[in-house]
Parts: sequence; structure tokens; C-alpha cells
Amino acid sequence: MPALDQRPVPARTSPVDGPPIDSPPVNTVPATGATIWLTGLPSAGKSTIALAAAGRLRAAGRRVEVLDGDTVRTHLCADLGFSRADRDENVRRIGHVAHLLARNGVLVLVAVVSPYAGARAAVRAEHSSSGTPFVEVHVTTPTEVCGDRDVKGLYARQRAGELRGLTGVDDPYEAPAAPELRLPAHQQTAAASVAALHAALDGWGLA
Amino acid sequence: MPALDQRPVPARTSPVDGPPIDSPPVNTVPATGATIWLTGLPSAGKSTIALAAAGRLRAAGRRVEVLDGDTVRTHLCADLGFSRADRDENVRRIGHVAHLLARNGVLVLVAVVSPYAGARAAVRAEHSSSGTPFVEVHVTTPTEVCGDRDVKGLYARQRAGELRGLTGVDDPYEAPAAPELRLPAHQQTAAASVAALHAALDGWGLA
Repeated sequence: MPALDQRPVPARTSPVDGPPIDSPPVNTVPATGATIWLTGLPSAGKSTIALAAAGRLRAAGRRVEVLDGDTVRTHLCADLGFSRADRDENVRRIGHVAHLLARNGVLVLVAVVSPYAGARAAVRAEHSSSGTPFVEVHVTTPTEVCGDRDVKGLYARQRAGELRGLTGVDDPYEAPAAPELRLPAHQQTAAASVAALHAALDGWGLA
Repeated sequence: MPALDQRPVPARTSPVDGPPIDSPPVNTVPATGATIWLTGLPSAGKSTIALAAAGRLRAAGRRVEVLDGDTVRTHLCADLGFSRADRDENVRRIGHVAHLLARNGVLVLVAVVSPYAGARAAVRAEHSSSGTPFVEVHVTTPTEVCGDRDVKGLYARQRAGELRGLTGVDDPYEAPAAPELRLPAHQQTAAASVAALHAALDGWGLA
């Protein structure tokens, strides 16, 4: 199966983008969907790992979606800020959408700081309610390294006093006590982290 | 394939609901996903038709999700009210989630008033961007009949002066100018509406 973004555009019945008429229906076969939840500090490497892993899984024929915290905020959570309540609601909504996708056979790679253990546990519980696998992956890059990387300039802005509530600096990060996997993205290349994630998914029957 | 809600719960590796280890990975085959968007007045019959159609499609082996306006408001849109801006944001979020599911092979039945044509057109455009079929279905039950049915007591509350902004009464409803399908749910049984919807989906290669 070609990668999702390369699927041919189906023929159209009309200029109003109606459904195709010339392709026969194809029933699905069961596929093991799952949510792979990458949590960690800003600039820890979550999105990089998620995007690269997604490419590899798509190339192997899996249906994959990446839900990136920054992107999701523009689509589903434009109303939310960075208070604890808003962060929790952000995680709840992302978790709900991930669950809808995963229980339909999609591998969902979520990359979001998700600093509070309680909110992550609630997402796990929602998945558990339908027997949908949920895998918590802690990208363990420590604050000092994240601050040096500073992909989005957040750490510099915090140091300059232009930003408050930066997770891991002046806002809490509750590290997972028992994640299914830890990725020390400060001690290995992104490719090595992706390989470790893929090997773990393979071992669980999810890759 | 069993219906979604009857899928066996996969075995677990640990009490923390990790992924299954004893089921081999099953690659997906392409399936024609689509969003079937039911719009119409409150109590028009949208949810009834969506749920019944979903049951029939699941029984035939399709992956199906129903996104019901009332349910979605509690999960994804708890912050939103019933102003025009909030109604449009509600439709935008539901449309975004429907698109994520549909482009992954899921048949998504959306039942939401969605009174503004512009917001519905924006959802259609988002689907079009990925070549994902989008079908607009107008459930045409008129206000008088909806007011008699009054499933949720909204019409009575409006008449009693306890509620303002009821679509079709004292708030606008912009009927679709060219929906792919119209269902006159006031002139036929729910079963007949479901049969008509299913026949149309079948004709488009989506059932």
C-alpha cells in the first residue's frame, strides 16, 4: 500500500467533490491500531522522532497519523492557553482524537509535552475502555540539553523574561513513573531513537 | 470482521494496559473512507439515521464512527456555546476530526445541525485537500414537524421563553443548495431513510 500522502486522489462525480463512483468498495481487514504517546520537555525531540517513525511505518504499509501538539493547538485547541487546566484539556482532546483513530486501526503518534501524569493517565484509561493499545514513551532529554537545542526559542524567551510557565524550567513536568519505553534522545541520534521505538513496536506486534 | 464494539479485547502485557504481545501485526488494505455529513434542524432525525446506518455498515464489515453533535460537544467542544462563531468553530473541529478518520479508511457519520453553509463548505474543502470523499446529506424535516417531535424539549423551552437562538425558529438555518442527498425524514420511516442513504452510499462505492 502506498504511503497515505501518496494515495491516488479518487475520481469525482461532480464539481462539488462528491464521492467517487468508479472505484469498488474495499472492505477493511482488522489492523492493530494503537496510540504511541511521546511525552517530554519542549525541544526534547518528540516531534522529530514521531515524524521519522511515521515515515518508516507508512513505508511498511501502515495507516499512520501524527498528532503534534503545536499543530493540534491550531486545529482543535485554539481556545486553550498554558494554564494547568488548559494543558489538561489540551491533552484530553488530543487523547480523545487519538483514541478514535487508534480504535479504527490507525497507528497514532502523539508528540505533546503533556506535563501532568494525571492527564496522561486519563488518556490511557480512555483507551483501556475500548481495549485499544496505549504506549507511553518518555523522551528523557534533560532541561539543560533542551535549553541548548531550543528549537522554538522558548528557553531564550524564558531567560529574557518574555515568557513564563515553561515546562521543566518554571512550570512542572511530572515524568512518567513507568512508561512502556524511555528514549534518551540526548545520548543517541534521532535515527537511533526511531530504531529503538520501531523495535519496541515490533516486539509488541504493533509495527 | 465483527462490529467495532464487539472486537475482542487484545491480550495485555501488563497491568498498565500496554500493547498486546501475542497478536501478530496485520497490515491494512486500502479502504474507501468518507465523511457522511447529516445536516438539518434539531429533532430532524439526523442522529437516529446516523446510528442506524452505522449499525448496518458495521454489520457489513466497515469501520464506522458516529460523531454526534451533542456527544462531541462534551468531548471536544465543551468550551463552545451557540453563537455564530462558536457554532462555526464546533463544525470546524468536528469536520477536522471526521477528516482525520475518513482519510484513514473510516466511514464517518456526522450528525450535527451545522446551520451555516460557509462552515459546511469549509469542511468540504478540507476533505477535498486530501481527496477524501465528503457527502452532504440534508435531513429536510421542516420546523413544524421537528417542533412536534421535540426530542430534547428545545422547542418547548423556546416557546416558554427559556431558550433563545434555536435553529430554524429564532436562529438561522441555511439549507444546503446542492447536497449529494436529501432525506425527507418527515415523509418516510427512519428505516426508509436509512435504506435510501445506504443505497446512495452503495451507488457511490462507499457502502
